[in-house]
Amino acid sequence: MVKLYDDERIDYLLAEEDMQVIQSSNVFAFSLDAVLLAKFAYVPIKRGKILDLCTGNGVIPLFLSRRSNAHITGVEIQERLYDMARRNVELNDLSEQISMLHGDLKDMPSYYGNNKFDVVTCNPPYFKTPADDKKNINEHLAIARHEIYCSLEDVVQSCSKLAKSGGKVAIVHRPDRLVDLMTLFRTYRLEPKRIQFVYPKEGRDANMLLIEGARDGKPDLNILPPFYIHKQNGEYSEEMKEVLYGS
Amino acid sequence: MVKLYDDERIDYLLAEEDMQVIQSSNVFAFSLDAVLLAKFAYVPIKRGKILDLCTGNGVIPLFLSRRSNAHITGVEIQERLYDMARRNVELNDLSEQISMLHGDLKDMPSYYGNNKFDVVTCNPPYFKTPADDKKNINEHLAIARHEIYCSLEDVVQSCSKLAKSGGKVAIVHRPDRLVDLMTLFRTYRLEPKRIQFVYPKEGRDANMLLIEGARDGKPDLNILPPFYIHKQNGEYSEEMKEVLYGS
Repeated sequence: MVKLYDDERIDYLLAEEDMQVIQSSNVFAFSLDAVLLAKFAYVPIKRGKILDLCTGNGVIPLFLSRRSNAHITGVEIQERLYDMARRNVELNDLSEQISMLHGDLKDMPSYYGNNKFDVVTCNPPYFKTPADDKKNINEHLAIARHEIYCSLEDVVQSCSKLAKSGGKVAIVHRPDRLVDLMTLFRTYRLEPKRIQFVYPKEGRDANMLLIEGARDGKPDLNILPPFYIHKQNGEYSEEMKEVLYGS
Repeated sequence: MVKLYDDERIDYLLAEEDMQVIQSSNVFAFSLDAVLLAKFAYVPIKRGKILDLCTGNGVIPLFLSRRSNAHITGVEIQERLYDMARRNVELNDLSEQISMLHGDLKDMPSYYGNNKFDVVTCNPPYFKTPADDKKNINEHLAIARHEIYCSLEDVVQSCSKLAKSGGKVAIVHRPDRLVDLMTLFRTYRLEPKRIQFVYPKEGRDANMLLIEGARDGKPDLNILPPFYIHKQNGEYSEEMKEVLYGS
């Protein structure tokens, strides 16, 4: 039996009926962002190696394991979250396919060596580090949300080094960082290939973006159809229901 | 009476009932791209100075004159097109508000001086200069469509120099040049502020993008709702009809 801490709960992922995820709103609960990245990212189906940086409670590796037989490694800097991720792998009996590593993404290129993964995914902290008095009081959430331990440049640089030449890097972020993402991708030899913008509903500005680049790729960018989270009446859209409930 | 050459025709712009445009499919006919840019661009309503580079037959200044009392200058490098643009101003009795200039956009910063316009718009050539044997046989169309006389970098650099600090630069282009546009905008101190992607219909990738940057602006990018040209049944969408027919 997998151990649960007092503030933790087990949620079922509806689209994957047999998958369960330990989370805690005090520490970390996965978001739509992670779900959409796991659906957006290219993955090799039969073999290969996938790396998920900033893995949190490991929900992206869990989701990706349903789409790929490749070996998947998740890296998390917070020990409490790493431990949750490790137990999520155990809970879902995925220890043969998924490994969790407690470490700093900036150390991964020297740990693994460059040019090692077919796919690198990352749902990084979104917010620039604020003044100390404005930081999230909860340290676990602050580290997951703010660029405290890693800047966006650290993220893109590590992703780029770890990806094989021709390998893919997929990141979810906020639209207001698109310019930074594009210039950093070019700086670190990741050519943007696919972008999808996510809109809360029709008529609103985008509030999320999914971007995939190819290491050493040639310029050839496609802007995918928009993804809407909600219908005008506030219900989840059909495409969102498909992601969440598999129907 | 304004002179018409043999291959020219006068079209009515339906959304602007009293506006007529001379064009020629042998030389230059304005596109949806120009119409959408003229609708997308921010313009000062009462006063100020607007510059339209690569103006072609001058359709963007004509459209903008319906949204702004600012003085508008169009610049065109091809004499035949410049002459058409000049006659379009005359035909619509807009000589007090619109001036046309025959010249190279790269010479405009030294001609006008830097830091002069509230808004600069441009619908530049989209395609990198191909090998000679693949160029459009028609020289006028080739110059309008291919980066023969100006590269995208020339365009962004000239727009940036000509815009006042805080002024806006709005460009229409293809999505596959988004990364180039963003890196060039940053290089020339234009901060992207608004982007809208244009889709041929739902479920397809975008085939046009509208981007507006502010000279010396702070990072704050908004991704506007997508714009669809057609409905699923092939008719123009309601938003496209609004642009074309004003209803």
